Amino acid sequence: MKESFFQVISVSQCIQILREFSPTPPITVDLEDAPGLVLAEDVTAGEDLPLQHRSCVDGYAVRARDTFGATESNPGYLDLAFSIDIQTPPGSCLESGQSARIPTGGCLPDGADAVIMVEHTLGMGPATVEIKKSLSPWENVMLRGEDVAHGECVLHAGLRLTPARIGLLAALGCSRVSIHRRVVVGILSTGDEVVNISETVRPGLVRDVNTHALAALAKSCGSDVRRYGLVRDDPHTLTKKLETALMECDLVLVSGGSSVGARDHTLESLQRVCNGHILAHGLAMSPGKPTIVAASGNKAIIGLPGQVTSAQVVMQVLMMPFIAHLGGRKNAFQNNWKSIPAILSRNIGSRQGRTDYIRVKLTPSDNDLPLATPVLGKSGLLKTLLQADGLVEIPENSEGLKNNQKVLVRPLE
Amino acid sequence: MKESFFQVISVSQCIQILREFSPTPPITVDLEDAPGLVLAEDVTAGEDLPLQHRSCVDGYAVRARDTFGATESNPGYLDLAFSIDIQTPPGSCLESGQSARIPTGGCLPDGADAVIMVEHTLGMGPATVEIKKSLSPWENVMLRGEDVAHGECVLHAGLRLTPARIGLLAALGCSRVSIHRRVVVGILSTGDEVVNISETVRPGLVRDVNTHALAALAKSCGSDVRRYGLVRDDPHTLTKKLETALMECDLVLVSGGSSVGARDHTLESLQRVCNGHILAHGLAMSPGKPTIVAASGNKAIIGLPGQVTSAQVVMQVLMMPFIAHLGGRKNAFQNNWKSIPAILSRNIGSRQGRTDYIRVKLTPSDNDLPLATPVLGKSGLLKTLLQADGLVEIPENSEGLKNNQKVLVRPLE
Repeated sequence: MKESFFQVISVSQCIQILREFSPTPPITVDLEDAPGLVLAEDVTAGEDLPLQHRSCVDGYAVRARDTFGATESNPGYLDLAFSIDIQTPPGSCLESGQSARIPTGGCLPDGADAVIMVEHTLGMGPATVEIKKSLSPWENVMLRGEDVAHGECVLHAGLRLTPARIGLLAALGCSRVSIHRRVVVGILSTGDEVVNISETVRPGLVRDVNTHALAALAKSCGSDVRRYGLVRDDPHTLTKKLETALMECDLVLVSGGSSVGARDHTLESLQRVCNGHILAHGLAMSPGKPTIVAASGNKAIIGLPGQVTSAQVVMQVLMMPFIAHLGGRKNAFQNNWKSIPAILSRNIGSRQGRTDYIRVKLTPSDNDLPLATPVLGKSGLLKTLLQADGLVEIPENSEGLKNNQKVLVRPLE
Repeated sequence: MKESFFQVISVSQCIQILREFSPTPPITVDLEDAPGLVLAEDVTAGEDLPLQHRSCVDGYAVRARDTFGATESNPGYLDLAFSIDIQTPPGSCLESGQSARIPTGGCLPDGADAVIMVEHTLGMGPATVEIKKSLSPWENVMLRGEDVAHGECVLHAGLRLTPARIGLLAALGCSRVSIHRRVVVGILSTGDEVVNISETVRPGLVRDVNTHALAALAKSCGSDVRRYGLVRDDPHTLTKKLETALMECDLVLVSGGSSVGARDHTLESLQRVCNGHILAHGLAMSPGKPTIVAASGNKAIIGLPGQVTSAQVVMQVLMMPFIAHLGGRKNAFQNNWKSIPAILSRNIGSRQGRTDYIRVKLTPSDNDLPLATPVLGKSGLLKTLLQADGLVEIPENSEGLKNNQKVLVRPLE
């Protein structure tokens, strides 16, 4: 109830602040430990890919001009000069009028400039092949360097290592890669009314939902989670715990109890461990207003709302992109590419000067786009999050969204 | 080149076969180890949530009828009878004409049926509160059991434990949950032309891309990966390795070398370890035709194409849903909800009797839907996968898709 003490900032100001924190330091790891992590350096190809002209099909290596005019009804004939194994290096030379049996991936012999698929041929004894199709030069051939050219920058620093990118690095022989160390997120809860989930709750108490839901969210974006448990509303203990967490983690999330006392203690402890570097005390967003952003050196401590649905929305909207940013991801806060376009099913009012996040359910519609229906129910109900597929943002300068308006739905984790 | 030996089945037949494999057995784990795993049993609420009527806001508990008619310009006045702490159990009784200070989450006292937000009040000394707004009964109150009612089935077996569901289980005190054990996926590569990625490749050889890309894909859907490395094209060694992998894993993925010899050896070894239970030898899909499905008891061994882009497409289209299915997920093969609607940028031909998967790039367009542009280039090029955002399926009974047609894009991992 100390509204006047809030130094409320907007969501975009908060993102500006969070962007200033540096990513985790680069370390070099084996490629098999790199999936999902973020490149710390550009990767340049040390060789061509493929290293030689290779066949894309099972068939016969030929000179394309030797096949010109060949059709099913008017086939051509070539000598079967030799056979190429998959691991045979290039070298043998194909003369005009000759063909050589070649498997998918086999190296083209010198002189050959195309491969005819086995389906378009007929073996005519051991020494002759019937050619039933005319080929263009380089048909069915993957050219040397066609995938990647030696010296080409293939992946940039700041890119997340998806499976396809891991495959590319494997193909180029990058058995060790420089990535940003996995982000370590510390999680603790406060609040005199909060008890561990295995305890029986007497009237007036609630279980520690936040530790579990926030840890699951932090894990789902690839961070390592350390749990510091539940701290009573006691500034001394909280300060000690926060100091330990700050030493061991890159980011500390402390979700306050809902009580005014808990909020005050969290702020007081944050001020102590951060030497007063409170960067935000309140965000102009709903839900999620009672969020605190504090810095200790390059480490951030975030005071999240005690209210469990609010804490999860702040986590999805701001903290998960922030964890990606700390993990080295470029443009971590611009995740619109993940959003699903949809049509809003009804008007939603909003207040200017505050960014609203509306929980919506997506359902197929007769239109091209799915229908986004706001989930009804009090904001604090867990079922509103359980029923929602995603969030729709109402920008701070907007008075609301209209029925039938196109919106972008940010999918919930 | 032994096309005639292929027992080719369709993609839908393959899914039917894969669906028959049973999920991993249920085990009971701590809730903190459960995120991302799949419930093995329905969960029924053992209590109401919330346990009592609770305030949604910071303010004053009142009887709604005592506020009727109150406005900013014509406020009402109530006695401030007592204060409620966040952890105070309900009990005290609010009389007509009284109010009680209450924090967000506080239990409503008997007699009260609404809470007025502090913003709509004015303290008039220690004993009186000015009421500037009329409330409806139960306004700003979360009713006992409003989120979950005692005895309600809140989550069904077969559901993946998302962060919001983990939060719900925490709120209900489910500190231990019955989930399907994490799927263990074994990965090995074969092929005489394939070398470990740290080796220098002499002409004719290629690096073992599949082990790395397939492991990254298997990890990304939450399985534990065991790597069995690279096995030469030697049926005896391959059989031994497969037997070990089958004992230690729920699913074994062996990607064949591209050579005919490697394919034959893989088939021979699969027949040995599976006692001839080859369920499919070839899939009517492109890319991905040279895929083998074999069974040893309830365990599956899949022979994936040696060609690296084909192997990744089969993995994305069939194996990742299969891993989800083995992990206990209901309707694991119906993942259309994840697909992104888009407009195709050009005609794509296809052959009837075969399901085609086209790599596409998504770009914003003037229409409601993004544009899906097929990625050009030979199917075997890694860059076609790197440039693609997703896959468009052309069903087996279709002759192709038309320019400007609406399609569903399955996002690539």
